[in-house]
Amino acid sequence: MSATYPADEGELPGRIMSGEMAEQPAMLRRVLDEGAPVIRAVAAEIAARKPRFVLLTARGTSDNAALYAKYLMEIRLGLPCGLASMSTTTAYGAKPDLRDVLVVTVSQSGGSPDLVASTRAAREAGAVTLAVTNNPDSPLAAVSEYHIDILAGPEKALPATKTYTASLLSLYLFVEGLRGGDGAAAAILPELAEAVLDRKSEVKALASRYRFAERMVITSRGYGYPTAKEAALKLMETSYIPALSYSGADLLHGPLAMVDNISPVIAVVTEGRGGEALQPVLDRLRGRGADLFVVGPKAQVEAASAGFVLPTAGVAEEVQPILEILPLQMLAYEVTIARGQDPDAPRALAKVTETH
Amino acid sequence: MSATYPADEGELPGRIMSGEMAEQPAMLRRVLDEGAPVIRAVAAEIAARKPRFVLLTARGTSDNAALYAKYLMEIRLGLPCGLASMSTTTAYGAKPDLRDVLVVTVSQSGGSPDLVASTRAAREAGAVTLAVTNNPDSPLAAVSEYHIDILAGPEKALPATKTYTASLLSLYLFVEGLRGGDGAAAAILPELAEAVLDRKSEVKALASRYRFAERMVITSRGYGYPTAKEAALKLMETSYIPALSYSGADLLHGPLAMVDNISPVIAVVTEGRGGEALQPVLDRLRGRGADLFVVGPKAQVEAASAGFVLPTAGVAEEVQPILEILPLQMLAYEVTIARGQDPDAPRALAKVTETH
Repeated sequence: MSATYPADEGELPGRIMSGEMAEQPAMLRRVLDEGAPVIRAVAAEIAARKPRFVLLTARGTSDNAALYAKYLMEIRLGLPCGLASMSTTTAYGAKPDLRDVLVVTVSQSGGSPDLVASTRAAREAGAVTLAVTNNPDSPLAAVSEYHIDILAGPEKALPATKTYTASLLSLYLFVEGLRGGDGAAAAILPELAEAVLDRKSEVKALASRYRFAERMVITSRGYGYPTAKEAALKLMETSYIPALSYSGADLLHGPLAMVDNISPVIAVVTEGRGGEALQPVLDRLRGRGADLFVVGPKAQVEAASAGFVLPTAGVAEEVQPILEILPLQMLAYEVTIARGQDPDAPRALAKVTETH
Repeated sequence: MSATYPADEGELPGRIMSGEMAEQPAMLRRVLDEGAPVIRAVAAEIAARKPRFVLLTARGTSDNAALYAKYLMEIRLGLPCGLASMSTTTAYGAKPDLRDVLVVTVSQSGGSPDLVASTRAAREAGAVTLAVTNNPDSPLAAVSEYHIDILAGPEKALPATKTYTASLLSLYLFVEGLRGGDGAAAAILPELAEAVLDRKSEVKALASRYRFAERMVITSRGYGYPTAKEAALKLMETSYIPALSYSGADLLHGPLAMVDNISPVIAVVTEGRGGEALQPVLDRLRGRGADLFVVGPKAQVEAASAGFVLPTAGVAEEVQPILEILPLQMLAYEVTIARGQDPDAPRALAKVTETH
């Protein structure tokens, strides 16, 4: 049952990142088996507090996981939701009235001082605080009223991969828990993730398209939009290709001017309403002759220049992002290798970023 | 008193955009003289409704104006605030409980069908709705309970300039009105804007730095962050240079790997707490030998590779964004001209974007 993604890598560049990518099916099983009961219990306690508004606080990869949670909260729960602008608290000392507000802080390390400070301030301002981290002993977990451990195990690669999907699944189970559900739609994910990660040679061949790319545009709508943002971040962190992510609607409001045959476009097409809402954007891109790479269902990939077919039949739209990011992590990895760089050694990343 | 920015342009490329940029001092005066009393009255009515949360809805340039309003709401009012993910309503049919929520929709045209639909849905869900548009006869104004006219006059250039600064000033006056203030800090802006727009030859000389740039990174923190995002959008819309904007804190969390001597960095440094919070990021960028261009106070520009000195003495931090964007609009214009393109004829923009 072990994923084979890194098996042939030996001491090659990127073996830490590829090793952690390969752990994802086992991690997803662990979250479903060991994490889910704890998450449901936390969700039940928080649901009893009846929050009316949610603020999500995070940075970098975790910010993309937080955005996924925002879609879930709004669509699945009808809870209005915002992403916090942290500096309003940490730099400007804003003292918002946070009664009836749930503040969710997502951070793999749980160690960034500004997240700790803003979470402490939120709790003092009356919020219900929840930390979602990969470290139950972290300062962030300590300062928050509630904590969810994403159980991803130690992450050593600088580009986060397994902590992203672990955060998504944990947040999905939490939101389902808030509405009293059991998150059964996620049960299929470990097996499907394994099948996706096994398609390494396919991604390697696709990566050659971008070996000499000078820039990229990544787009999606709805649940897939956080995937587009995370894919752009991953590509930039590893390959240094400037990758610009836009919601499909925003793309039409301006940046489309930049899309031509020298800016390849990656579209993340979820099977469901997000993919339907993206359809006019895809049509417009095809009409302009854009080089369009689709991650999504078979029919969408066949209508594009190239792509990666995701298993979507029987997969609820709201859990598709947990699979969608996998081929894009692999793509970032393979493009970086193809460009002669080492995905394990980005030039400037520190694992715990000390922003204040 | 007329600004001279476009006076020598004749029939040259970009004369529509440059003409509208030059109208900004007069527009700011109009908003202060004619708009402010109306805005204060709307603010007083909405304040009496005692909203506890704010959701801002917008796309493109207006989304950056909405982000500025988010900082104002959180810092000046202590009102928790989020940017709406529109597709949750329009694509997924989410029915959030919006009692006690103020929904502010910002759109220069007031004509985008998805904004109209999401605002109508918000009103039905119990929200207090406010439209901020450049068209009082628009469908968005009609569907909203309250309306603020930004009084920018007809905008014909595809890259929005004067509607951005008009939205910022209108939103500033609105937020000050909510707290019972008169927004006196804005009185100095028309005169200073005129002085900035008069420095055309300075910006033209600076633009030569970016004539051959293949990508750019734009960063800021706090009140200047919306400026960074809007500058990136403007550069992309006109010159097609991929311009990536990050808050200073997020930049350290990943994309810094992409910053080296081939990715010039523009930093928007407000004089005040936002600029102070950005300081460690500026130090780190200088330490990496980044090509750093600063828009901000004199001392910050002198410590950088190049820059544009903004008048900040006696200018409250929260209104500095209304000036900060001006040299960056001018830069986008001049870089585009230097690259032999026409800022008035971006390849793909439509003035009213029909996203659904």
